Amino acid sequence: MSMSRDDRMDQPVLGIVAGGGTLPGEIIRHCIDEGRPYFVLALKGFADPETVENTPHHWVRMGAVGKTLRIARENGVDTIVLAGRVSRPSITSLMPDAKALKILGKSGLRLGDDGLLKSIVIYLEENEGMKVVGIHDVLQDAASVPPGPLGRVRVSDEAESDIRRGRDVLDALARADVGQAVVVQAGLVLGVEAIEGTDALITRAGGLKRDGQGPVLVKQPKIGQEERVDLPTIGPDTVERAAEAGFSGIAIRADGVLIADKEKLIRLADDAGLFVAAFEGAQRD
Amino acid sequence: MSMSRDDRMDQPVLGIVAGGGTLPGEIIRHCIDEGRPYFVLALKGFADPETVENTPHHWVRMGAVGKTLRIARENGVDTIVLAGRVSRPSITSLMPDAKALKILGKSGLRLGDDGLLKSIVIYLEENEGMKVVGIHDVLQDAASVPPGPLGRVRVSDEAESDIRRGRDVLDALARADVGQAVVVQAGLVLGVEAIEGTDALITRAGGLKRDGQGPVLVKQPKIGQEERVDLPTIGPDTVERAAEAGFSGIAIRADGVLIADKEKLIRLADDAGLFVAAFEGAQRD
Repeated sequence: MSMSRDDRMDQPVLGIVAGGGTLPGEIIRHCIDEGRPYFVLALKGFADPETVENTPHHWVRMGAVGKTLRIARENGVDTIVLAGRVSRPSITSLMPDAKALKILGKSGLRLGDDGLLKSIVIYLEENEGMKVVGIHDVLQDAASVPPGPLGRVRVSDEAESDIRRGRDVLDALARADVGQAVVVQAGLVLGVEAIEGTDALITRAGGLKRDGQGPVLVKQPKIGQEERVDLPTIGPDTVERAAEAGFSGIAIRADGVLIADKEKLIRLADDAGLFVAAFEGAQRD
Repeated sequence: MSMSRDDRMDQPVLGIVAGGGTLPGEIIRHCIDEGRPYFVLALKGFADPETVENTPHHWVRMGAVGKTLRIARENGVDTIVLAGRVSRPSITSLMPDAKALKILGKSGLRLGDDGLLKSIVIYLEENEGMKVVGIHDVLQDAASVPPGPLGRVRVSDEAESDIRRGRDVLDALARADVGQAVVVQAGLVLGVEAIEGTDALITRAGGLKRDGQGPVLVKQPKIGQEERVDLPTIGPDTVERAAEAGFSGIAIRADGVLIADKEKLIRLADDAGLFVAAFEGAQRD
């Protein structure tokens, strides 16, 4: 922002393709703190205007791949990070231009949950010479979560058992490229996330919960998930929603789930009496 | 009904433990048609009063296992069939009496989705000398569904592909004893059923669907599911709900899913332009 365009052209610029939520803002803050040049490609309808308005940015349409790449290059971008929530749109609304159709042609027209994102990354790297990095490469603090409790509330034995059950279900589901989160209570799986998002899952499962100790949200990346574009994320809003829904805690895979605004999240969890804990688990590809 | 109690004591009586929905009524009609003696143990809060009121019946509480068994024996019941929807209650509300606690003790206190039902069946057979038969043993027509289309609407190639994707997801999930149904559209899994029930799944997925050909509901029994108490079921209301939600069709495993009121279901599906089709697939235990 304080740099002129010519200054920015002199050094590699990180292109932040910004969707909704707080992660794009965290990456922007991180770049400012580190003095790293960046340019925000803000997705219309998803990115938060307040987050991007006082930074070097350009609003782009979700499907305008050709135009987005042109704007990125004009602003010296050679590396791209995709950050923030995007409700998966229909293929037609996502993909209207010529470059987009080329990507689709390469990927085949039938796509699973991850197929499309992978195709886009492969296309950008192989055909456009654009490097794609993961949020966890840029935001090492948010992505680095050691095993163990994050806040003050400890994980009960019953919750430990529910976490194991949740991981079993997610491991099974991952084979079919579905699901990043489940909700378990006393061994019973109250809900499985498909494309509705974790927020909707929490609210739904809250309405199905039984008496006794509250349910546990268990979240981990899918096996073979394209980590550079779609790492699962929790944030302060996740804790607030889980507390409202009567949950007892949240378990995530260590180093496998991004935590937006970690300090605030831990404070909210402690205040609400929710545990937030990371479990160990190797990435299995 | 036309039989006196003494008549009924002379021959084995089928005890119909009746939950919600149309299946208990179908079993009652079947027994009347076949001249098979029966006695309905109607679950308070679940069974439809109109369905049971003009038949030999007694209302019982969900958790009153001891009392239910006594009433069953007093009415000559030696074989039990459990039929109809029961929203899974909390363990405490399901299981208040001494016999119930004995069953719980045998099963362990932590139960997956199927564990409790299996425990009840094993207990009734081993400790109470009560035979438990499946709905498909009694209602052979509803349970017998040959592979292929059931109505007039044919399955498109895209729908075939969505059915395959749905089956892959259900096969993966079954390993974790979760899920009888998924909704798929153009390769994308819109929703996975946990304990919310197929009706809730259909409505939710309808709200998440994309442009283009409507989603497909895919339903099959879980691997190792206790078929005597919990076979998945579709009925005319499933078709109505799927049509309202903009679905293109329903696929079930041949001989693996009960169809309540088959004629009406097919008529409604034909009228709404929905396909209903059964796919082949061996029961894998």
